Amino acid sequence: MKFLVPAFTLLLSSFVLSAQNSPASQRPNIILFLVDDMGWMDTSQPFGDSVMPLNRKYHTPNMERMAREGLLFHQAYANPVCTPTRTSLISGMSSASTHITNWTSITPNQATDYKDDQLEAPQWNVSGISNVRESNTYLCPKPLPQLLRDAGYFTIHVGKAHWGSLGTQGSDPMNLGFVVNIAGSSLGHPQSYYGEQNFGNMPGKTTFNAVPDLQAFYGKDTFLTQALTQKAIAAMQYPISHQQPFFLYLGHYAVHLPIQPDKRFLDKYLAAGLDSTEASYATLIEGMDESLGNILDFLKAKGIEKNTVVIFMSDNGGLANSGRGGIRNTQNAPLRAGKGSPYEGGIRVPLMVKWPGVVKPGTKTNNYVGAEDFFPTVLDIAGIKPITAIDGISYLGILKNPGIKINDRPLLWHYPNRWTVNEDEGYAWSSGMRYGKWKIIYLMKQQKLELYDLEQDLSEQHDLSASNPQKLAELAKRWTLVLKQRGAELPVWKNTGKTVAWPDELINK
Amino acid sequence: MKFLVPAFTLLLSSFVLSAQNSPASQRPNIILFLVDDMGWMDTSQPFGDSVMPLNRKYHTPNMERMAREGLLFHQAYANPVCTPTRTSLISGMSSASTHITNWTSITPNQATDYKDDQLEAPQWNVSGISNVRESNTYLCPKPLPQLLRDAGYFTIHVGKAHWGSLGTQGSDPMNLGFVVNIAGSSLGHPQSYYGEQNFGNMPGKTTFNAVPDLQAFYGKDTFLTQALTQKAIAAMQYPISHQQPFFLYLGHYAVHLPIQPDKRFLDKYLAAGLDSTEASYATLIEGMDESLGNILDFLKAKGIEKNTVVIFMSDNGGLANSGRGGIRNTQNAPLRAGKGSPYEGGIRVPLMVKWPGVVKPGTKTNNYVGAEDFFPTVLDIAGIKPITAIDGISYLGILKNPGIKINDRPLLWHYPNRWTVNEDEGYAWSSGMRYGKWKIIYLMKQQKLELYDLEQDLSEQHDLSASNPQKLAELAKRWTLVLKQRGAELPVWKNTGKTVAWPDELINK
Repeated sequence: MKFLVPAFTLLLSSFVLSAQNSPASQRPNIILFLVDDMGWMDTSQPFGDSVMPLNRKYHTPNMERMAREGLLFHQAYANPVCTPTRTSLISGMSSASTHITNWTSITPNQATDYKDDQLEAPQWNVSGISNVRESNTYLCPKPLPQLLRDAGYFTIHVGKAHWGSLGTQGSDPMNLGFVVNIAGSSLGHPQSYYGEQNFGNMPGKTTFNAVPDLQAFYGKDTFLTQALTQKAIAAMQYPISHQQPFFLYLGHYAVHLPIQPDKRFLDKYLAAGLDSTEASYATLIEGMDESLGNILDFLKAKGIEKNTVVIFMSDNGGLANSGRGGIRNTQNAPLRAGKGSPYEGGIRVPLMVKWPGVVKPGTKTNNYVGAEDFFPTVLDIAGIKPITAIDGISYLGILKNPGIKINDRPLLWHYPNRWTVNEDEGYAWSSGMRYGKWKIIYLMKQQKLELYDLEQDLSEQHDLSASNPQKLAELAKRWTLVLKQRGAELPVWKNTGKTVAWPDELINK
Repeated sequence: MKFLVPAFTLLLSSFVLSAQNSPASQRPNIILFLVDDMGWMDTSQPFGDSVMPLNRKYHTPNMERMAREGLLFHQAYANPVCTPTRTSLISGMSSASTHITNWTSITPNQATDYKDDQLEAPQWNVSGISNVRESNTYLCPKPLPQLLRDAGYFTIHVGKAHWGSLGTQGSDPMNLGFVVNIAGSSLGHPQSYYGEQNFGNMPGKTTFNAVPDLQAFYGKDTFLTQALTQKAIAAMQYPISHQQPFFLYLGHYAVHLPIQPDKRFLDKYLAAGLDSTEASYATLIEGMDESLGNILDFLKAKGIEKNTVVIFMSDNGGLANSGRGGIRNTQNAPLRAGKGSPYEGGIRVPLMVKWPGVVKPGTKTNNYVGAEDFFPTVLDIAGIKPITAIDGISYLGILKNPGIKINDRPLLWHYPNRWTVNEDEGYAWSSGMRYGKWKIIYLMKQQKLELYDLEQDLSEQHDLSASNPQKLAELAKRWTLVLKQRGAELPVWKNTGKTVAWPDELINK
């Protein structure tokens, strides 16, 4: 079972050289700049091999700047929806292992699965992740922020958390190891982006989606993205002035629904001919990009740019199913589908890492990485002893040597749930695995496997399952083994009470 | 004008010996345990000379413990209502100087004065205190938490803030110098004390009084006081593990309205014959006392008890005007009146200080101190260079030598506002000054001065203004001078547009 303990682990990781924790004083600051629902194409900085039409739609000069100053991943992945990614980021586990396979509700113990006539979701951890044993949560006693904090990091959370439902320990980022929490709770999207609307905090109208902690901006024309940026900058001051290494998790609520325009940028997108929804969406993108610029500028002004690692990523693919302007499923073109789907549009995300002196500026890599790799990578960067028995693998080796070639690694997106009303394009009861250039997809309701060669077919238009049954069988077997090893769960047929078949069982049929 | 620069300042303060900041590592931790609306008699620990009937009503074993382990002030004062006290605590200024003379509304730029036919309140700072120049706020560029933070303290705010209205910088404790803020905003009282009611955060019912940041307790049977205590204890872990001195401002929402029973303690008070309101109130007191015990136990368990100063106080006198059980204005007996009044029931509060090795256990002092003295005292304790031109005076000298006798110091409660519907017992348009054993009160609407000898007449039943006109005149003159020096404002007669007379002008009449 060589593929379960990949040989490249030793090449990738610097754990071998740093089995002991290094002193806190030598550790770099680490910033995760996490965007919500941002697609791979939602930027003027191409993440593909060339400039494509959608790249011309957006203006993200600070992402371009970051690409010039750091390493860009052509093939970085997150999960199809947000909580599974966010819980993978801080646990190092894939969603197949955490059993947090769908987004968590604000209400505890409440599954968010869309009702289905034929299939029933398995008993997944509907309340999210927790640092203590709680019902319907995945137990992670030492989430990443806690490990960093234990090692001397000042840990700051700003923005969207969405790790657990209200009433659970995981709903409060401070219970997951953050020293400071600003605006993070159980909510998955903001009630309002507008300071004028108190970000939703309006008696009589306040829902659980009202953004907490930003009271100084109430009634002001400060957009949520700006407010979070200002709070993040203010929060960094303490560790900087005390020469303590810090970890900043800046989880922007942007660019998730509701698509409310950031009026500072709106006119130019309307002038460019975008419909009002898409123009508004583009302003969410540009406001987020401005925030990135503010953060980079701040690091420079404080003289800590060289000792700060900035990691930019999104938590899932761009929304393409509904709620956006234009024709459905075109918003991530040339990638297929979008958020909620295991096709590339739903899972491939922008990822860039800037680390002066370590990461060579203006470099790119074709190696694929996943959300669960963030955990061991950050520990590796911080010089903290490795945590064993996790699904993720440190990509510090890629940061140092982007040209390295890694193909013998299974990366999984397990989503045995129904997300929403639409069932096309993998939006319901799906799973996927990447292995080398291959992508295998399982559409459970259809009891169908698909096979794609991503090197030849980025848009997943040519299913090779029929033409290459040998590869399909090999991958299905491999995949099933990993799924079972991780304790992955499958949906149940309502008429028989039996779970759907494992991928390799479809081959044997 | 000797009394404006009291000779005892040098005796009281250790500033002379510590003109330079001392190193952060040598500084003691400082905890302010601040109770809301707790009266001087709301405890089984007598703050008077003997056990009085109301002391038998309450059970506060941890306050008794603290009295055994520290210094008790028989005559400590706050302001008649809460925001003036809270802004004095962090600015060192009396309300006559800050022009924050009444409680601040959650809504910015909105005076909270009760409507009156004859008098109009002056233009006071209705939006509270701010670290930057903002309309309708008192500018305090370096509030106490900021000074402590600048000197190396890790500053934590937990609980009720109420320093500024929504949309102002002062509404967010982090802008006032706190590194961490939990549950503090513009609200002056909680929508609900119950975790089962999410402390008020219930879509459709949520008001601005819903308590923020406690989402992990939603739906649980955790009382607000417990939740805040647990969060405070969790927040202290970071500075303790990093050997950084910390300042914890634990501002309990208890025992302010709504008087919701903490059911764990209710039965015994009902069994003792208290009516349901008073029994419920007593449970708020006992829950608060339990919190004090939890904090003291935690310090001991962490081995930092000896290097931690704990200051216990309340922000104004106990409520006696309405909303309580029993006969009006008896709830602070033998003190007269209650919250909102310059009579002793409205301003005299419990104050105890525990500092092993510095403050002698089980000691008491008759020296009187005010809310504005907290600021210079804490700086003095922390070994931080004095701030000049403030109204408050350090009482570190009293902590070290409780037997010292200080009588030549004017202490003011300036309240040129109408608090509520009732106008009796000083609840509207009032001002007061303590000087030595004397207390002078100005009832502005009645254009009347009263004089009391507190040594002989703790209950302020014998107005000596007629029998001792010489002392009255002397104090009125002294008082007017201090009021004018501080820029104090007076209400305006609606019919003439003129301000009411200064105290000394009444004497000349």
